[in-house]
Amino acid sequence: MQSTKSLVAKHQETLEQACEAVLKRGHWSPYPEVPSGKYYGETANADGKLAFEAVLNQRFELSGPETGADTEGTFIGEECSPYGIELGINYQQHDVDSLISSAGAALAGWRNAGAEVRTAVCLEILERLNRRSFEIGYGTMHTTGQGFAMAFQAAGPHAQDRGLEAVAQAWLAMEQVPSGSVWHKPQGKHEPFVMRKRYHVVPRGISLVIACSTFPTWNTYPGLFASLVTGNPVIIKPHPQAVLPVAITVQTAQQVLQEFGFDPNLVMMAVDSAANPITQKLALHCAIRLIDYTGGNSFADWLTGNAHQARLFIEKAGVNSVLIDSVDQVDRVCQNLAFSLCLYSGQMCTTPQAILIPRDGIDTGNGRISFYQLADAITSAIEKLLSDPDRAAMILGMIPSGTTVARLQQAVNLGRVVLESKCLPHPEFSAVSYRTPLILAVEGEERQQWMQERFGPIAFLVATDGLEQSLSLVEEAISSKGAITLSVYSTDEEVLERAEQVAIERGVALSCNLDSGVYVNQSAAFSDYHATGNNPAANTSLTDMAFVADRFAVVQSRRHEV
Amino acid sequence: MQSTKSLVAKHQETLEQACEAVLKRGHWSPYPEVPSGKYYGETANADGKLAFEAVLNQRFELSGPETGADTEGTFIGEECSPYGIELGINYQQHDVDSLISSAGAALAGWRNAGAEVRTAVCLEILERLNRRSFEIGYGTMHTTGQGFAMAFQAAGPHAQDRGLEAVAQAWLAMEQVPSGSVWHKPQGKHEPFVMRKRYHVVPRGISLVIACSTFPTWNTYPGLFASLVTGNPVIIKPHPQAVLPVAITVQTAQQVLQEFGFDPNLVMMAVDSAANPITQKLALHCAIRLIDYTGGNSFADWLTGNAHQARLFIEKAGVNSVLIDSVDQVDRVCQNLAFSLCLYSGQMCTTPQAILIPRDGIDTGNGRISFYQLADAITSAIEKLLSDPDRAAMILGMIPSGTTVARLQQAVNLGRVVLESKCLPHPEFSAVSYRTPLILAVEGEERQQWMQERFGPIAFLVATDGLEQSLSLVEEAISSKGAITLSVYSTDEEVLERAEQVAIERGVALSCNLDSGVYVNQSAAFSDYHATGNNPAANTSLTDMAFVADRFAVVQSRRHEV
Repeated sequence: MQSTKSLVAKHQETLEQACEAVLKRGHWSPYPEVPSGKYYGETANADGKLAFEAVLNQRFELSGPETGADTEGTFIGEECSPYGIELGINYQQHDVDSLISSAGAALAGWRNAGAEVRTAVCLEILERLNRRSFEIGYGTMHTTGQGFAMAFQAAGPHAQDRGLEAVAQAWLAMEQVPSGSVWHKPQGKHEPFVMRKRYHVVPRGISLVIACSTFPTWNTYPGLFASLVTGNPVIIKPHPQAVLPVAITVQTAQQVLQEFGFDPNLVMMAVDSAANPITQKLALHCAIRLIDYTGGNSFADWLTGNAHQARLFIEKAGVNSVLIDSVDQVDRVCQNLAFSLCLYSGQMCTTPQAILIPRDGIDTGNGRISFYQLADAITSAIEKLLSDPDRAAMILGMIPSGTTVARLQQAVNLGRVVLESKCLPHPEFSAVSYRTPLILAVEGEERQQWMQERFGPIAFLVATDGLEQSLSLVEEAISSKGAITLSVYSTDEEVLERAEQVAIERGVALSCNLDSGVYVNQSAAFSDYHATGNNPAANTSLTDMAFVADRFAVVQSRRHEV
Repeated sequence: MQSTKSLVAKHQETLEQACEAVLKRGHWSPYPEVPSGKYYGETANADGKLAFEAVLNQRFELSGPETGADTEGTFIGEECSPYGIELGINYQQHDVDSLISSAGAALAGWRNAGAEVRTAVCLEILERLNRRSFEIGYGTMHTTGQGFAMAFQAAGPHAQDRGLEAVAQAWLAMEQVPSGSVWHKPQGKHEPFVMRKRYHVVPRGISLVIACSTFPTWNTYPGLFASLVTGNPVIIKPHPQAVLPVAITVQTAQQVLQEFGFDPNLVMMAVDSAANPITQKLALHCAIRLIDYTGGNSFADWLTGNAHQARLFIEKAGVNSVLIDSVDQVDRVCQNLAFSLCLYSGQMCTTPQAILIPRDGIDTGNGRISFYQLADAITSAIEKLLSDPDRAAMILGMIPSGTTVARLQQAVNLGRVVLESKCLPHPEFSAVSYRTPLILAVEGEERQQWMQERFGPIAFLVATDGLEQSLSLVEEAISSKGAITLSVYSTDEEVLERAEQVAIERGVALSCNLDSGVYVNQSAAFSDYHATGNNPAANTSLTDMAFVADRFAVVQSRRHEV
């Protein structure tokens, strides 16, 4: 067994840098985001692909509750690659009570290890995950449908960044609690009262992390690592369509835990099927004290209405807006917007859905242009971006959900089509086709069309009476439907300030005049707060102090000093 | 209008000391706990009494929502002094929508003032409250029934300590968020991306603090000040029997807010009557985003099941235990226990209810004594403590609630009475009588008798098979019914360690071998964490990071640096 003491020393500098990054909020990451042999080793890509292929059509073995000696357990799996290749991976199913009981049995040893050791173990897990980024990238690509480059980044280093950020934030919270104190209370002429006190950081209980189908690691690592580092055993319930990235994560965590003498069942995976879901039973178990959930509104509302024994960290649907008032260089703005709308076929919680444009046009650096001239510029930029099929397929990725495809097909009736969605043969995976975004024009008052989440590559150009109506519709969309992002374009500082006031009032992250290689979809760990908890899209932020501080309690003892 | 800049400077040192105290957790307080002219001025007691008497049979004027020009509003009041003097104080009633609308209107100015100014204003409010400690003491005495000395301490300086602790903890959370950053991301051979980001600390919304009848300030100030300092307007809903201490608090806050140019309606009081309560309507309002509640289980459960739009901070019922394994000096232990059981007639959330003693007795520094010898020693210590009527009346105070008196009268059937509750004429207020505690002996298995909260001066000596059963019954009581405190007596270090393990597992604050002037009931701000959130008695702790961090959000904006 390896020494936890040397592990603490090994990760000390990374922890210090991560804490500084959390507090300073500049750019920082220990995990290279470029899928290059330069950072990951010349054979990393090939090795990762091989590792991915090696698990296909196999049982993926993980530690879990003991099954009876004479049963080998039930293995299930229903993942389909959106790229058409056969996956055929099976995972062992466990019943809820066994999972809870195994997690409960693992708790004490992990709690008693203390914050410093737990933090070092979590950093080691993240480092090992980083080494598996290519494998995770391929696993994510073939479950979520993301293009490989994005799958690598978002599910690999960017997710690891978010995990590390949660660990650092939790460390900052835990290290505020001293291990003890001497309470020395003067009593006038009498002897003072002197008490020696001890303070123990203890977990809340067992943590349930419910992963989504589109970002099974990026949206999961914050809750996983925030709960784990504060002492809570974690059960991850993946979406039945996106299990593999979670399974690789759990396997990596279990290996590290076991190497350092801890119960691997501190991190377990609970698989289920679309036909026989177990999430509700898990979520209502009295031992589950923390639940992280990313997904649709109806299950989010069910959790809120029923899982009263648990503290809920929820991210659900929203309607993200772009408000265009005036721009300097139309082309640059449209290129930026085109990429934001196309990336992963609009299946990001940060993707804009509504672009509000004054009906009578906008001022630009080259004079005034009409609503439809701007619409043309946006659609042309999209067409140009997608003109090369290889690039198009890489940026757009695939749509894994039939529901999303059906929504896209029906959406043509929601407004005037300014850009049709096309279904095009995939240049690499010939069995499947990818789809380009649908862009519709609607009036601002047509709220029932654009002011509700239309998940997928569906965006609206919303014609408004002008700045005042644009601002007020944006406010209404955020406060009634929620939003993670707001983007504004204006050459007028006063308009930018007004947008900032809207952002403050409605609790949304604002991006101003993005017109180069930074996109509104992107949220960088250590610098950007993802969601605020102040509008219906989420009740929490990744990752602030509130996201971590309620995952542990402090238990104290006191006695007279003699 | 006074300058907020000088106010920040004025309180800088106190804030720094408070933050250091929160992090070091030794003894510290800027508010003298002794009701002495030496600290508060020679005439402070007389002045405070006069100030209290001056509000009797009057309308207590506070700022609130505008009433129509031609209506003077409805004034109500139903407080009765448990000491029999007439109070006759009336407070203006407001409807829920007006309160919410006024609070909402006050929000922006307070939010925009920033964390530093809000913190200084809160410290000024606390300082002014401290100057009114005698008045608050008399107001608390004549609503809660506490003896004056306790009312002064608990509702005055000790409550102020808890408020200051919340301010300091919230300051530590807010100051972690920088006002801005420069995000400088290298792009290989290309120019780096440079973005300038701004971070705004913004409140969650409007905060509702629901006060209880027994500790209207001590249990209220943490939530009030944690919410206020993080930018949330606060509406306090006092218990109809204990309005005055809340009203004095609100008046003081409003005066300070107004002096420094803020809307006094940032802190408002919502009065109701037992017959026409408004708490449910308030609690369900969509603008209420934070609710602090101290009180009974049924309303706590209603809040949890219904007020889903709000983050709840709840303290409810519990069964606190004392486990006696062995003691050195029986007399000292019994004196300590006697005081704990008598103080404010057992109406503290920290008062022990069950004292678990091995049926076959315990070892002491003077040899073994039987269960009944120990019972006799405890009851004798209580009788001796209460032998002087003046002292007895001061320690016991009065029971303000008829329900509690009725519970006490019926409780004689719950076990073998080892000490009868007596009803004795009050030495100072001749119209009323005070009551002494009822002590009953029961068997450990008689859970239905002792293992549920019997609020009031009712305690059980619980006979167990020995240490093992005592420990297991204590664990069961904490995990099934909740507890804020656990007290253990043992001369064996191993037993103390086992009790500490129980405390860690079940999430309760442990006191070991208290046998002098520190009582298990007492929880000192800056040093003791009050409740843990890890058992049914509370979902939060006063005051840790989790108590404050979720009361604000961070909203960011970003733009390219040009």
